[in-house]
Amino acid sequence: MKIYDWPTGPYPARVRIALAEKNLRSHVQFVLVDLYKGEHKKPEFLAKNYSGTLPVLELEDGTFIGECTAITEYLDALDGAPTLTGRTPREKGVVHMMSKRAELELLDPISVYFHHATPGLGPHVEIYQNPEWGLRQRDKALKGMHYFDGILKQQPFVAGEAFTMADITIIGGLIFAGLVKVPVPAECEALSAWYARMQERPSVKNRITMSEPARAS
Amino acid sequence: MKIYDWPTGPYPARVRIALAEKNLRSHVQFVLVDLYKGEHKKPEFLAKNYSGTLPVLELEDGTFIGECTAITEYLDALDGAPTLTGRTPREKGVVHMMSKRAELELLDPISVYFHHATPGLGPHVEIYQNPEWGLRQRDKALKGMHYFDGILKQQPFVAGEAFTMADITIIGGLIFAGLVKVPVPAECEALSAWYARMQERPSVKNRITMSEPARAS
Ligand SMILES: N[C@@H](CCC(=O)N[C@@H](CS)C(=O)NCC(=O)O)C(=O)O
Ligand SMILES: N[C@@H](CCC(=O)N[C@@H](CS)C(=O)NCC(=O)O)C(=O)O
Repeated sequence: MKIYDWPTGPYPARVRIALAEKNLRSHVQFVLVDLYKGEHKKPEFLAKNYSGTLPVLELEDGTFIGECTAITEYLDALDGAPTLTGRTPREKGVVHMMSKRAELELLDPISVYFHHATPGLGPHVEIYQNPEWGLRQRDKALKGMHYFDGILKQQPFVAGEAFTMADITIIGGLIFAGLVKVPVPAECEALSAWYARMQERPSVKNRITMSEPARAS
Repeated sequence: MKIYDWPTGPYPARVRIALAEKNLRSHVQFVLVDLYKGEHKKPEFLAKNYSGTLPVLELEDGTFIGECTAITEYLDALDGAPTLTGRTPREKGVVHMMSKRAELELLDPISVYFHHATPGLGPHVEIYQNPEWGLRQRDKALKGMHYFDGILKQQPFVAGEAFTMADITIIGGLIFAGLVKVPVPAECEALSAWYARMQERPSVKNRITMSEPARAS
């Protein structure tokens, strides 16, 4: 498998973490797409992912799978023993809800803030900006942090008793929030404590260095 | 199970179609939430779904599941024989990618257009509008229609050879586009032909009347 990504990107982090959690790192070759050069908006890349975003997974048969949630579904199903996307109908429903909510209320708003109310990837990539919308999205993300703080006061992980894709999505959100300097509010103690725990996980800690060429064994 | 929805809404349609496809209609009680009265933004409803959107599924154990994709995952997994969300890892990946892309590039932009560049649900619900952003999203949706037209020139369904959640999401998008008078461009012939076929499916055709009380048998 190939993964087109940008090693330090928050969305690519979601797939890198999933890969490590599923022990699939050695099956993957990473291909760098330079966001700051706008390579992801060029026709060659758009043919791989119409939406022009990273990451994208390429399978051996030439199929391209974009969207972190879709890639995670694929990776988690490979060994027939899903751990990240839920096993029972109820688990699947709750994990997908919480991961989508994590996108809608935290990760995606931070991304829109970055692209619309900061210089983002630079003027040749950010050809249209709507700063008012961008600032609204930052506020939405801050409100989202309070919501997830409330959830993590009641349970150890975002979707309940176990680590899942929903935790990974919030991790992506907080990585992005850190990059654009929208820190977790001090009063969100449960969210901060959970994030400190998450950063101890090898899948999270080693997500960037994992793309270095594997040593000959 | 209970489903909180608004019978003619485009997102609720997604779950109503999934229910019919899975023959689960008789297991569900529908509860009306009046969008034009803003009932979905009141604390009582926000406790069920933080994002303040319909539909929401309530399970017998009191669990609330929001987000159409999450509800569809739940319903499709109930009988252990998924037909809407994919069976193999590759199918799951492709279905989730195409359904998410259908949201990102068509359904969600139409929704943002409705809420930001038209009167939407009325001034007491639409307390902040960004018309410029709304108009951009309408243009994005039109571009999305051309993309999906290209896909449907090559294959009978949005995610390949079979009807899936990805078709349902585009159906939701075209229902919404119809309501807000953003018609499918005449040149998108494959998309229009596919939509005509989809409207013949009983799950699509009967999605609104299905909420009438079941007749005593
Ligand atoms: N919905 C996509 C979003 C991916 C995304 O926004 N990725 C970032 C990289 S961190 C990107 O490609 N940004 C470039 C841009 O939007 O111009 C997903 O979940 O994969
Ligand atoms: N991401 C949600 C979106 C649902 C949605 O936007 N539903 C509409 C009903 S058609 C709604 O509740 N709109 C009210 C509003 O946004 O104020 C999902 O997939 O379920």
